[in-house]
Amino acid sequence: MLNKLDTIQQHLRDNNLDFAYISNPHNIGYITGFHSDPHERVLALFIFANTIPLLFAPALDVSDAKASGWEFDINGYTDSQEPFDLITDLIKSRTTDVNAIMIEKDHLIVERYLKLQAAFPNATFSNGNDLINGMRVIKSPDELAIMKEAAALADYAVEVGVAALAEGKTELDIIAEIEYELKKKGVTEMSFATMVLTGVNAASPHGNPGLTQIQNGDLVLFDLGVMHKGYASDISRTVAFGSITQEQEEIYNTVLKAQLTAMNTVKAGVSAKTIDMAARQTITDAGYGDYFTHRLGHGLGITCHEFPSITDTNEMILEENMVFTIEPGIYLPNVAGVRIEDDVVVTKDGVISLTTYPKELQIISQ
Amino acid sequence: MLNKLDTIQQHLRDNNLDFAYISNPHNIGYITGFHSDPHERVLALFIFANTIPLLFAPALDVSDAKASGWEFDINGYTDSQEPFDLITDLIKSRTTDVNAIMIEKDHLIVERYLKLQAAFPNATFSNGNDLINGMRVIKSPDELAIMKEAAALADYAVEVGVAALAEGKTELDIIAEIEYELKKKGVTEMSFATMVLTGVNAASPHGNPGLTQIQNGDLVLFDLGVMHKGYASDISRTVAFGSITQEQEEIYNTVLKAQLTAMNTVKAGVSAKTIDMAARQTITDAGYGDYFTHRLGHGLGITCHEFPSITDTNEMILEENMVFTIEPGIYLPNVAGVRIEDDVVVTKDGVISLTTYPKELQIISQ
Repeated sequence: MLNKLDTIQQHLRDNNLDFAYISNPHNIGYITGFHSDPHERVLALFIFANTIPLLFAPALDVSDAKASGWEFDINGYTDSQEPFDLITDLIKSRTTDVNAIMIEKDHLIVERYLKLQAAFPNATFSNGNDLINGMRVIKSPDELAIMKEAAALADYAVEVGVAALAEGKTELDIIAEIEYELKKKGVTEMSFATMVLTGVNAASPHGNPGLTQIQNGDLVLFDLGVMHKGYASDISRTVAFGSITQEQEEIYNTVLKAQLTAMNTVKAGVSAKTIDMAARQTITDAGYGDYFTHRLGHGLGITCHEFPSITDTNEMILEENMVFTIEPGIYLPNVAGVRIEDDVVVTKDGVISLTTYPKELQIISQ
Repeated sequence: MLNKLDTIQQHLRDNNLDFAYISNPHNIGYITGFHSDPHERVLALFIFANTIPLLFAPALDVSDAKASGWEFDINGYTDSQEPFDLITDLIKSRTTDVNAIMIEKDHLIVERYLKLQAAFPNATFSNGNDLINGMRVIKSPDELAIMKEAAALADYAVEVGVAALAEGKTELDIIAEIEYELKKKGVTEMSFATMVLTGVNAASPHGNPGLTQIQNGDLVLFDLGVMHKGYASDISRTVAFGSITQEQEEIYNTVLKAQLTAMNTVKAGVSAKTIDMAARQTITDAGYGDYFTHRLGHGLGITCHEFPSITDTNEMILEENMVFTIEPGIYLPNVAGVRIEDDVVVTKDGVISLTTYPKELQIISQ
């Protein structure tokens, strides 16, 4: 914990910033260990260049915040108090001359920004997004160990889902069975709404699972993940049910080749766009370039979609212990959709996949 | 749809505002019929005082937006374009002299606010939150019909949960069975993470369901809801398992009395605080005032927690067809937690409850 605070304090001092107002609850959880969704109430972490930090929280969360292990001050406010009056006084008691404030411009809402501006009319505002994204993207050994467990639960979920496939069952039936078995294992939250899409449904970029029944000859696409000890996993697998056409098989094997090519391209020092382009080129060469309609992947950590975005224009250089997804796909309207996705860790010489469910084409017998 | 646009346009003209930038995806869904979560991408609805509106969306959402029935312009942007450059040009092509802009100050993030400010440096910014909240809180007959269906699914979920209770099953077991049966009925999304809490777990304000087993003598608290055709339901019920102590029974009956008292107080023309205070007084009179630690209820509609907040300080006057929850509770640490919650509609003379699962004390036999 001290390391994260030290890093931010150092940034504040290096840039002549008086304090940071961290408003994003995920970032507060990352820095303090106190994970909470305040909904419309104010939860704020104030980190000062030259004095100890302060967590400001709804009164009903204060006991949980203390229990989380945060060792510095916690100030609560009740629903009948005006939080920014209290915040202003608390800040002024810690630092008298405020000239520059770090905020997360991609999270702070205008209402609160204007209140801060009114309280400190001479202050300029600096954007802390890059700093915190840069910290979160590099995982510690402890984080990697938890993410490995989260990925193993995602592997298990696919295993359950594949075993549950049967002609006439609906997409929602399969999801129900997957989540039922996960809850039996103690999983309390999925990292996003579980997706099981069968046949042509999987070919729609925004397919929603529903009452469509699984039929012989469908490709069935699974995309799911769990939240585990505060970290997300995210896996996609596609299997054939009953039988497979030549066209479906060609699509499947093209996606698999693209996914493996991208995996083999990853190592510290390579750019994000290099790996996206490696997968994209494989799919384009096979003639399906128009049907790979999204980025290659996204960062993964305490949320399921976070920095960085793995696109063909992102020049960011990969570093050791970054974690993100690699998930190329082909979506041929009215034919089939295939996506294969792993959660990967960048290493000095290559990549480690956290998810390990088999990727070779499986044809599930009816 | 036209009515909602007309209302906003009239507000713009009455207040000399040139256009509204609607950024909250829930409000966009409410106004346009296009419900979508853009994540970090820009989804924006521009409503002009004197010309037709414009929906601005990520390119991959444009076909869905068209399919949603929105009949005015839709402009898409790709991940390689800078959205605010396009937005600025689009706005300037519709209205040349921009002096005043309506935004949702409780939703718009600083990054986008600063871009708008840079594009229109002479403009002032007005807050549209009250206008849109005031529109959303009054439900149309169509909305009420859907919410009635959503509430019936919540009733059913409690019925499934109560039937599933058995000594030794865990809280997560019960949740798994509830959600399994709901998925079989075609429910694709809960309105929030389903809560089943047993024994002393229910007495913690932030109890999370887990592997605690149901034991004879527990009070078991259910709090859950579904999303159905874009609308949320939210119900809480508490039942006794196996047996009940005198203290538990007194707590239960106090909460029930408070809930019924609040229900009987509701009608058009009464203030929100009147009904909160009616419930609170009942609980205080019974000696449990310190253990009713939250507001009486919250608005309900296209999201599960929305305007208004039913508190003892909210002077808002209730109007016909407002929908909100009434959910008093008593949480006696290390003893038990009881909450009883209905979704209600304000009528001219009283109240209609959308949720109808029985509220009388039930002792479920082992």
